[in-house]
Amino acid sequence: MRLDVVTIFPEYLEPLNLSLVGKARARGQLDVRVHDLRKFTHDRHNTVDDTPYGGGPGMVMKPEPWGEALDGIIASGEAGERPTLVVPTPSGRPFTQQLAVELSGKPWLVFTPARYEGIDRRVIEEYGERFDVREVSIGDYVLAGGEAPVLVMVEAVARLLPGVLGNAASHQDDSFAPGRMESLLEGPVYTKPPEWRGRSIPEVLLSGHHGKIARWRRDEAFRRTAANRPDLIEGCDPAALDKHDRRILSELGWRELPDGRFGRQRQAVEE
Amino acid sequence: MRLDVVTIFPEYLEPLNLSLVGKARARGQLDVRVHDLRKFTHDRHNTVDDTPYGGGPGMVMKPEPWGEALDGIIASGEAGERPTLVVPTPSGRPFTQQLAVELSGKPWLVFTPARYEGIDRRVIEEYGERFDVREVSIGDYVLAGGEAPVLVMVEAVARLLPGVLGNAASHQDDSFAPGRMESLLEGPVYTKPPEWRGRSIPEVLLSGHHGKIARWRRDEAFRRTAANRPDLIEGCDPAALDKHDRRILSELGWRELPDGRFGRQRQAVEE
Repeated sequence: MRLDVVTIFPEYLEPLNLSLVGKARARGQLDVRVHDLRKFTHDRHNTVDDTPYGGGPGMVMKPEPWGEALDGIIASGEAGERPTLVVPTPSGRPFTQQLAVELSGKPWLVFTPARYEGIDRRVIEEYGERFDVREVSIGDYVLAGGEAPVLVMVEAVARLLPGVLGNAASHQDDSFAPGRMESLLEGPVYTKPPEWRGRSIPEVLLSGHHGKIARWRRDEAFRRTAANRPDLIEGCDPAALDKHDRRILSELGWRELPDGRFGRQRQAVEE
Repeated sequence: MRLDVVTIFPEYLEPLNLSLVGKARARGQLDVRVHDLRKFTHDRHNTVDDTPYGGGPGMVMKPEPWGEALDGIIASGEAGERPTLVVPTPSGRPFTQQLAVELSGKPWLVFTPARYEGIDRRVIEEYGERFDVREVSIGDYVLAGGEAPVLVMVEAVARLLPGVLGNAASHQDDSFAPGRMESLLEGPVYTKPPEWRGRSIPEVLLSGHHGKIARWRRDEAFRRTAANRPDLIEGCDPAALDKHDRRILSELGWRELPDGRFGRQRQAVEE
């Protein structure tokens, strides 16, 4: 997979030399190229921003350097290769595990992390007419630039490439992984020693009884999800819930709705 | 504000030397201390992980090095100073702009980015009994470690500190900013030149008519939000919508509900 990143802070992408992304690069599995946007300016001050039309605070990134940078990157591809452009912006569609999976199947991604109030809209329109452009947001918060989101997205995508994670089975129990745990957060994990600062591990984990352990983990996943992400419980596919799941949710104060989904027991919460 | 980060990849936090976080550190406004977790191990291999109790793929981070690292950090504070612990995990509560605002008011944050399947649960229990511990998730996707989320959270928090952003007014029009734009994404932005690759900017932005420009921006914010984040439109406080807002939403195919909120026009979508 080829990844290009255009930024005014190339150093910000240094972490892409570390850990599993760094190793995938060293193996030649990932071809990461970081480009300094300022190299595509032609004035003495390497200006990349200007005041917004219509007034208001903040600065907007000028279209010309982006156009020149993107044209050069696109032209550098093999004949017929077309990149997918990934534009980090708080105004985009949510970046989800599902989108990470989709992007991990693309041969070439180009990331355009912006600073200030963002990139002149015409750049998105220009390339959107010819390429697959995805404006994505990694979450409901505001950052100083798109570089940290690029680190996040590259990591989420790279770990899904074949052979990048040591143990492929590690994917299956991930929070948000497709399948039986799809709408559930992972519960607590424990390792040696069996006692630490007077705290023991749950006995069931020492039982050697795989069925009981799996059930305990699923119960804990429901508890954690109900506490931290009630929206995920509300969105649970009723077909994915077994009898035991339904009992746990009832015990946690959730109410089964006529369509088999679960809703918060509003009265119980208010009392 | 003091920030501590404990990690097995200290280099991953190098971007905290750049841009606005780097400048705030240089000014002495942010005291950032990055600690290598492996320094708190005592075996020849500096082991930080072990197999999970109960079996299954992946490794779990051992409690002892975390305990030793956190005890040392906590002890290094001035008398009476108590840190807030921020634990990045996909199983946590969502990190939002509101939480960024709350954390920006704390004097001292300690981040504990984990790798593998996460940290032995007893560490969270141990410190949770004595400190304010927040398990937070930056979004619904799985990463290789908590370091990228720490970069995200530190940036979101740091830009809210007084004097860190050049222009305080820049906050007010942020996506997710409290106030009139609370549930709206920002619309498109433009800067010079007025024509680029045959593309002009919207005429209203040249009108000099502040009222018309503000209305156009709000309309565009509604369009973008309806397209990319229908969940935000559904969550809109009816009291925050004026007559014009309601007309725009109707034009976009949304239906006003009896309580004044807006719901997607399901029939129109299905046809």
